[in-house]
Amino acid sequence: MSDASGYSLLGRVHSPEDLRALPEDQLPALAVDLRRFLIETLGRIGGHFAANLGTVELTIALHYLLNTPDDRLVWDVGHQAYPHKVLTGRRSRLETIRRKDGLAPFPAREESEYDTFGTGHSSTSISAAVGMAEAIRIRGNRGQQRVACVIGDGGMTAGMAFEALNHLGTAGSDVLVIYNDNDMSISENVGALRDHCARVFSRRPDAARSAEAYRRAAAPESDLSPDDGDLFESLGVQYLGPVDGHDLDSLLPALRNALQIRGPRLLHVATVKGKGFDPAECDPIAYHGVTSFDPVTGEMPKSKSSRPTFTKIFGQWLCEAAESNPDLVAITPAMREGSGLVEFAQRFPDRYFDVAIAEQHAVTLGAGLATEGLHPVVAIYSTFLQRGYDQLIHDVAIQNLPVMFAIDRGGLVGADGATHNGAFDLSFMRCIPNMVVMAPSDENECRRMLATGMAHPGPSAVRYPRGSGPGAELDDKLQPLTMGQARIVRSALGRRRPRVAILAFGIMVEPALAAAELLDATVVDMRFVKPLDVDMILRMADEADLLVTIEDNVVAGGAGSGVNEVLMERHLAVPALNLGLPDRFVEHGGREEMLASLGLDAAGIQRAIQRRLRARDLDDVSSAGQTG
Amino acid sequence: MSDASGYSLLGRVHSPEDLRALPEDQLPALAVDLRRFLIETLGRIGGHFAANLGTVELTIALHYLLNTPDDRLVWDVGHQAYPHKVLTGRRSRLETIRRKDGLAPFPAREESEYDTFGTGHSSTSISAAVGMAEAIRIRGNRGQQRVACVIGDGGMTAGMAFEALNHLGTAGSDVLVIYNDNDMSISENVGALRDHCARVFSRRPDAARSAEAYRRAAAPESDLSPDDGDLFESLGVQYLGPVDGHDLDSLLPALRNALQIRGPRLLHVATVKGKGFDPAECDPIAYHGVTSFDPVTGEMPKSKSSRPTFTKIFGQWLCEAAESNPDLVAITPAMREGSGLVEFAQRFPDRYFDVAIAEQHAVTLGAGLATEGLHPVVAIYSTFLQRGYDQLIHDVAIQNLPVMFAIDRGGLVGADGATHNGAFDLSFMRCIPNMVVMAPSDENECRRMLATGMAHPGPSAVRYPRGSGPGAELDDKLQPLTMGQARIVRSALGRRRPRVAILAFGIMVEPALAAAELLDATVVDMRFVKPLDVDMILRMADEADLLVTIEDNVVAGGAGSGVNEVLMERHLAVPALNLGLPDRFVEHGGREEMLASLGLDAAGIQRAIQRRLRARDLDDVSSAGQTG
Repeated sequence: MSDASGYSLLGRVHSPEDLRALPEDQLPALAVDLRRFLIETLGRIGGHFAANLGTVELTIALHYLLNTPDDRLVWDVGHQAYPHKVLTGRRSRLETIRRKDGLAPFPAREESEYDTFGTGHSSTSISAAVGMAEAIRIRGNRGQQRVACVIGDGGMTAGMAFEALNHLGTAGSDVLVIYNDNDMSISENVGALRDHCARVFSRRPDAARSAEAYRRAAAPESDLSPDDGDLFESLGVQYLGPVDGHDLDSLLPALRNALQIRGPRLLHVATVKGKGFDPAECDPIAYHGVTSFDPVTGEMPKSKSSRPTFTKIFGQWLCEAAESNPDLVAITPAMREGSGLVEFAQRFPDRYFDVAIAEQHAVTLGAGLATEGLHPVVAIYSTFLQRGYDQLIHDVAIQNLPVMFAIDRGGLVGADGATHNGAFDLSFMRCIPNMVVMAPSDENECRRMLATGMAHPGPSAVRYPRGSGPGAELDDKLQPLTMGQARIVRSALGRRRPRVAILAFGIMVEPALAAAELLDATVVDMRFVKPLDVDMILRMADEADLLVTIEDNVVAGGAGSGVNEVLMERHLAVPALNLGLPDRFVEHGGREEMLASLGLDAAGIQRAIQRRLRARDLDDVSSAGQTG
Repeated sequence: MSDASGYSLLGRVHSPEDLRALPEDQLPALAVDLRRFLIETLGRIGGHFAANLGTVELTIALHYLLNTPDDRLVWDVGHQAYPHKVLTGRRSRLETIRRKDGLAPFPAREESEYDTFGTGHSSTSISAAVGMAEAIRIRGNRGQQRVACVIGDGGMTAGMAFEALNHLGTAGSDVLVIYNDNDMSISENVGALRDHCARVFSRRPDAARSAEAYRRAAAPESDLSPDDGDLFESLGVQYLGPVDGHDLDSLLPALRNALQIRGPRLLHVATVKGKGFDPAECDPIAYHGVTSFDPVTGEMPKSKSSRPTFTKIFGQWLCEAAESNPDLVAITPAMREGSGLVEFAQRFPDRYFDVAIAEQHAVTLGAGLATEGLHPVVAIYSTFLQRGYDQLIHDVAIQNLPVMFAIDRGGLVGADGATHNGAFDLSFMRCIPNMVVMAPSDENECRRMLATGMAHPGPSAVRYPRGSGPGAELDDKLQPLTMGQARIVRSALGRRRPRVAILAFGIMVEPALAAAELLDATVVDMRFVKPLDVDMILRMADEADLLVTIEDNVVAGGAGSGVNEVLMERHLAVPALNLGLPDRFVEHGGREEMLASLGLDAAGIQRAIQRRLRARDLDDVSSAGQTG
């Protein structure tokens, strides 16, 4: 879509400088253009959507009044930063967003000088902004550069945002926090802070949507009653607002005023997720992230996949298990939809805990529930479990409590890129004593592992990828696995030398099987990353000339590394080829595409093994074998 | 010290049942006994001290009014739980606390049914208590069992406490939070929340120390102005107090009232760290944890060690480096003394950030500072870095920002036990791309590594143990290391077969050298866990018949595991013996004692190698070597 095709005002804005050259009264028209551009572009290509419609006016106002990039603007999470990308010279590339070699899904420092801080996970922006403001102070530039960050009400529920506010208030850092309150996380926002903000609005129902709000926020001496912003004021952060984040006539003066004030302050901006596109306003959860939709009707294409996702497999199992097990409870840190908990939440509301974006609490809440004899399931994305790592070690594993982690988005996630890849979980969990770590190769295995974890009296994790699996049939009767027992899924015919055995973990079993055909390799579905099936490893070490381990986790410290440790411990100087994710952060792109680019599809696995077999040390073995 | 020796009242209390049988007017006398017992015992044996004098009356009141253990009492951190241990049947064993096979340093579920939740790290108690209360609700026992937790003002600064409050307030869980406010962390408490609470007190200077406080807290209808507890009330948690935590006449009725109320509520209790022992009241930081002292004068023995601790080596280097480098800034999450930052904080206050107990914010604050061209040093204990793990990956490593982590208490810490051991850091850091991870073998190496990290344009970590090193001389001129370069510290004479090369990491170089004498092994100080010195590994694989790796990190995924990966990647089927911490949590005890018990002293290393050399596969090599 060319610039000439109707975005007359937006077409002239190639940078924030262009924006700042516009007269103020043209900004509402620019917002119309920008919103329409987003609807048309994202309707076509998909991506994060509803949150971006909520920040159109706010982004315009911020770049209009801040002297970016010298003034620092930090976006929390970053899924609402598409308008920012558009206004900072990346409009023509927006249609490449989230695709391989295209625009990053979130702000990224290497992409633009306007992206001051890379994000993806929520709740980091205040910490980063305090750091920037303090560095500016130390450098002696205080007052010459302003620092603002935009954080949503979802992001504000995470502990690290509180930690940052607690520091900000006492350090007196010169930071403007824009509290972008749309009363939503990806799901509905929950928690007492949310209830508090709702009370602020309910006491003054006109405030957020009227010029009244602007006057209150813009008044040099605020006449707010202290309880409007008491939580923030308690922490030494001046509270301003609330103001209507879609009314530029309100927003600009409020923001101008907020920027004139110095020190720690927070401007409470009310926005609507999906603003200006009725279907998204009505169902912001469905329109949080989209693949595509009709820019007029909002109609979304029906999912064509006949295979259920692992998320769905988990959600179904959870409900089945809850029917027969009254001790099963489920916890999500604000990921009801993404983690497959919608049905459970409806059917078992008393045993369902959405704790808001609060991974640390989610894990230790599970530990607390477990001390009373319940068996909690913490449904969490791999990348977000990093937030609860200490709690996993200190509260769950040391006490050996029966908390099961249903870890979604293990391995590469695709379009969300480096910040969201579950690339490290096998490494960071495998080193923890008492943990049982499982990775299913297919849907039926996933169910069996979930049942195994639920039957285990200590901590366990079932780690599965984004998307669907190979489409295995589900057993009628669900049988738990024997702890630590792998299974051979393909036996070599045995005539080929050198003999290769592939020890595959999780979803890598499927491409391993395909690669094994040409090589006539044996393939083992290892099932357990911890405890490893030592007997199986020893058997394969005995039968094969080359062991290959493969996983969709980094090689460093991963499952294959565990196999190496077993070989070394058992004095088996057997060569092993460790395949897995590389020692670098893997960028965004299609999930299959990225796996293939890293050699983790069937062809890549086959190539890697053949390359290894050509290596000298194995040539010897190979010759020996052929003479036999 | 026998029970007959003067603790007439305490001597009759063997359990909370005994306590509850006492008439209320005898409780102050019991408090006198208990406090005296603590002073005399801890003066003799050492341990956590000042915090325990602050909880004497509170502990008595809680066990007096709660029906423990049926009612659940959760202690945050747990270093203030000695009075609890004494009153729950463990008085005679208190003198074994923190020693091998003695009482655990913190509450521990396996030790007593009164220890409902194991701790050590702060800020977990509200999450655990909410879990317990919700489990009791689900089990249908609501109202029959009460749940209370005690959290300090230090612990309340951590984000996870906020996450838990945010959930508690909206879930309406039946939890009483006792906010034990002594205005201290281990250092002075800092942060806006602390300032807020100080304002509460300053508005009513008499409140915390008078019967007034009791009446206010005990009144069925609280007449507090909303801003006294506004922060907590904002989160839906009813605020009660403040009340004097050392005046049982105030405390008991306030607590009785607070227990009668249902739902989420918080009783603000003012206590004094070191209460009742003047030297500790005057200097609660010095008396936070002690080795021993004179129970009359408070005099503490002079430290006999002539060798500086690694903590001190770091602190000195930091000040030296800050003199010449204006871009160096330092961050601590409430560990000024423990991390060796006292001098830096005094000399460079503008570049010093104590962010309170807030590890997540500490790490991302560092990332923010780094984006503006500064080079932050985050001084943190290994075990607490687990709290900032996501921030390390997501905010520092992905963006490849120059933040250096000065990681203290790597490896075993000794008396603080399983919760505080830095047993996993090499595993959980090694898997992160862009990280440089160093472990010094001595004091001079530590300084060189710190200089190396400071010169490195990306993230780095220098990880050193608790206590002092071998006492190396310090170079006059500090030279950074060549990135990823190991050094041979002992070359085998080479006549002995099989030839052994020990690749030692960090502080394990010293015992490795001792073990090498008898074996005539080569010893390499690997220096870098990441990047590994691949050339050195290949050379040693070529020269030796057996490689031994040794580290004070778990073997699973640790530094030795990295060596295995190199061997496998380079097709070197060389046997390696991976020595390190076991796959279980290591309990408290003397640090050297625990290392020896795990075979990680010189004798243990030697034994392990000899055992390995006797194994059959090496006998062959050995014979071959001897024939050559």
